[in-house]
Amino acid sequence: MKKILLLGATGSIGQQTIDVIEQHPDLFELVGVSAGTSEAALHDIVARHPGIQVVGMAVAPETAFEGKKTFVGEDNMTECIQNCDYDLLVNATVGFRGLKPTLASLNKGVDVALANKESLVAGGALVRKTLEETKTRLYPIDSEHSAIFQCLQGNTTREVSRLIITASGGSFRDLDRSQLRDVSVEQALAHPNWNMGKRITIDSATMVNKGFEVIEAHYLFDLPFSQIDVVLHAESIVHSMVEFADHAVMAQLGSADMRLPIQYALAYPQRLDLQEEKPLDMTKTRDLHFRQMDEARFPMLRVAYEAGEKEGNAGAIFNGADEQAVEMFLRGKIGFLDIETSIQKALEHVEYIQDPDYEQLAQSDYKAREFVKNYWS
Amino acid sequence: MKKILLLGATGSIGQQTIDVIEQHPDLFELVGVSAGTSEAALHDIVARHPGIQVVGMAVAPETAFEGKKTFVGEDNMTECIQNCDYDLLVNATVGFRGLKPTLASLNKGVDVALANKESLVAGGALVRKTLEETKTRLYPIDSEHSAIFQCLQGNTTREVSRLIITASGGSFRDLDRSQLRDVSVEQALAHPNWNMGKRITIDSATMVNKGFEVIEAHYLFDLPFSQIDVVLHAESIVHSMVEFADHAVMAQLGSADMRLPIQYALAYPQRLDLQEEKPLDMTKTRDLHFRQMDEARFPMLRVAYEAGEKEGNAGAIFNGADEQAVEMFLRGKIGFLDIETSIQKALEHVEYIQDPDYEQLAQSDYKAREFVKNYWS
Repeated sequence: MKKILLLGATGSIGQQTIDVIEQHPDLFELVGVSAGTSEAALHDIVARHPGIQVVGMAVAPETAFEGKKTFVGEDNMTECIQNCDYDLLVNATVGFRGLKPTLASLNKGVDVALANKESLVAGGALVRKTLEETKTRLYPIDSEHSAIFQCLQGNTTREVSRLIITASGGSFRDLDRSQLRDVSVEQALAHPNWNMGKRITIDSATMVNKGFEVIEAHYLFDLPFSQIDVVLHAESIVHSMVEFADHAVMAQLGSADMRLPIQYALAYPQRLDLQEEKPLDMTKTRDLHFRQMDEARFPMLRVAYEAGEKEGNAGAIFNGADEQAVEMFLRGKIGFLDIETSIQKALEHVEYIQDPDYEQLAQSDYKAREFVKNYWS
Repeated sequence: MKKILLLGATGSIGQQTIDVIEQHPDLFELVGVSAGTSEAALHDIVARHPGIQVVGMAVAPETAFEGKKTFVGEDNMTECIQNCDYDLLVNATVGFRGLKPTLASLNKGVDVALANKESLVAGGALVRKTLEETKTRLYPIDSEHSAIFQCLQGNTTREVSRLIITASGGSFRDLDRSQLRDVSVEQALAHPNWNMGKRITIDSATMVNKGFEVIEAHYLFDLPFSQIDVVLHAESIVHSMVEFADHAVMAQLGSADMRLPIQYALAYPQRLDLQEEKPLDMTKTRDLHFRQMDEARFPMLRVAYEAGEKEGNAGAIFNGADEQAVEMFLRGKIGFLDIETSIQKALEHVEYIQDPDYEQLAQSDYKAREFVKNYWS
């Protein structure tokens, strides 16, 4: 029985993680949960899982979680980690705030199933160092990185020639740059393949999300950026690929169901049954399309490679500026292409730090947000 | 240093095996070779590989292989096996005659890298039993089965929901059945994707080859026929797939270069560098097409499933009848669709044996050939 502490329990990945846990009560026990402000949903989860010891919330709950150690406020997630007896942290928090709990769990010596992109985009070098010092492991919860992780099974990193991450192209994949100037928030939120949170949907349309995934892959699989490529694949059926020294390309295909990467991360190396309404059936007639990536059309991809190569606090600036810009776009304060400008300007103007500690990364995140706010005011 | 005994050294797979060995002289040493009648080619190989101890030929060589133990005649391959010190047998012989050396090597306790389809199509149950008794292993040399083998790495057979073998459709994939009546030998030999031997090219056009592969997969991976499927994939880029209990589908993609499965079988679990002129590049623009298999168009596939389920000597009859019929088609004695008739009639009329030993399989092979000869005379 694996004891799971789940951060971000009421979000999209959090709820699907609970679904996986509830489908396999013989394998997993939920022993801790945290959420931001969704108190009702959190009470619902706690009521269904008597094994829960700790509960965290960003704001004070109106109704107490009786009989549970409850932590409230900015540090609720790290307090949950420190006060909970668990075997695997599932970090499904969104945003820079996910970095601290990732580091806390690794430093406690407990592996992390990671859905929080920012842990690696903003804090990749620090997380990598912590992994090595503590001999802990990360299990990716993300369709692309889980696909790569699956493709790598039975092989060594030394045998990899490159990772090929597939990109659906997002909501505006069929528009050229001149058509992007006046797109609306509603259009940007209509992702053709995946039903996800708002920020990641916008990040897919700008290709920032794919840039983040390139940086994540660099830290997850310990490969140089020169060995990480992206290809446009509109159907999102091939979730990603690995090319090896012998030119064999391994690919993982599947439907757009995040429970697959979640349960692979939770049960690794075991594969569990999954109840799906429309599982992929590759014996049926279908076509898969692959288009070479056009960096002029999607400049954020090149920016991500550059920020990744630069290391230091560049990823934190990239991510902070994007978080702020997407929020402003969603509130109608800036246009779609202004997200790109925000990121580029922040990377130019926020002070570069070579080898930042956690506090310096947090500062860089804050400064990037402030920079973007001021830039458009 | 792995010592390799190679049967069928002068054929297409044999020559490519030698290429792999010569590209990796630090890993492999060729210590024995056999061929049917291609004496000049065999002398050429022996001259390049001083480590060769044994040489086998079906017919007596005109020039002796000086300093080598030489075996001639029907049993030359098993004599090579018995008189050679080697670590891996590469069985690249074509036809039913490949079964005996496969069994001989396994019974000697040495693993086999198997390109000889007939060992499993005709003798699958016997080979499977021998593998279990001797605790030896088979490594598939075949793009489809190697792909499946690669997809299975890091997983257990228990987690497999089905194998999906891809079929290019062969030379006549765009013709309907009414158009097949008068096709010529030249048309049948023009395979769109692969440059292979004559028999396998014809077997691809009739879909008999894919039926053989279904039977091979059953014995190689120990899965029931109900868990083995075929899908038409004209490009031959996806070499085959495995679907797991969680609906993840793993696929191996690559160019049409047989050296990949050969060197994967030779170096397993290691992947070696491969020099290719046109390696597959999945970051470039391309489309992949998959079409549901039409059993009415390709009735030999259903016949293969039925022969496979029937076990006993049905595979030996299926294969023997096909070998004879293809030979007669190539000599212009019968038409293309008569190959199907030959197989169906042989399976109806040649005596069924439930649990045959090697001699009974050899008899069934002989009887099937004789039946087909007589049927058209």
